Amino acid sequence: MAENDAAAYDPENIFAKILKGEIPCHKLYEDDDTLAFLDIMPRTEGHALVITKEPAADLFGITPEGLGKLMAVVQTLAPKIKQAVGADGVLIQQFNGAAAGQTVFHLHVHIIPRKDGFPMRPEGAKMADPEDLNATAEKIRAELDG
Amino acid sequence: MAENDAAAYDPENIFAKILKGEIPCHKLYEDDDTLAFLDIMPRTEGHALVITKEPAADLFGITPEGLGKLMAVVQTLAPKIKQAVGADGVLIQQFNGAAAGQTVFHLHVHIIPRKDGFPMRPEGAKMADPEDLNATAEKIRAELDG
Repeated sequence: MAENDAAAYDPENIFAKILKGEIPCHKLYEDDDTLAFLDIMPRTEGHALVITKEPAADLFGITPEGLGKLMAVVQTLAPKIKQAVGADGVLIQQFNGAAAGQTVFHLHVHIIPRKDGFPMRPEGAKMADPEDLNATAEKIRAELDG
Repeated sequence: MAENDAAAYDPENIFAKILKGEIPCHKLYEDDDTLAFLDIMPRTEGHALVITKEPAADLFGITPEGLGKLMAVVQTLAPKIKQAVGADGVLIQQFNGAAAGQTVFHLHVHIIPRKDGFPMRPEGAKMADPEDLNATAEKIRAELDG
């Protein structure tokens, strides 16, 4: 694998703090290897992040097994999120390095539901209203339980 | 899984034809489950696609095992491509549905190397010169063999 390409991991990054429970999140799903929650600056309604519990800064720092588990969760969640928010499609994105748009250096996969005719908000444009995030998270969790 | 969300698979799509050898490609890598080649309308130099050999239109139509294998190849190739073209970061993208930007309905993952200060060309902006693609593919294959 490509471990020597992995960026250094800072255990005090914001997603590490979410994993440690030091910062709250709008949780959608959790298991032994992964955590999924809503992006607080959503590009569309339902924009979610799936993160590994490995201390991996990027795609180059996770084990292949961990990546497989992460992507299996992405695959399970994406259609549920799509359904919950009534989207027409789903964009999956994953950034490695600042040059590629990465801002938090803990490996995360974006699930961004897309609706025909609705553009995405720009990256990091606007903090969402927590009440709106709560409502969206509840819709998605209901879909996951259903 | 989410099979019932998967789009119908058209066995005559352009990537299916590449898999059958009916259309050529600038091949980077192939194994029993996956094929990787250069995008002919690259958003940056080294823009590659990794496709599954399963008849899956999108993320919702592939088996979790197949997805794991696909992503393992993405993880192996991405740092080699980054190195070959001298990039600073790597963007991974995967589109599901026309609303999310999907144009070929055979599951594929984009590996897009990014350099500081160099914007991406717009989606589908311009067909690359085949000679340039040959040169890039050779650099990447040399990195894979090295």
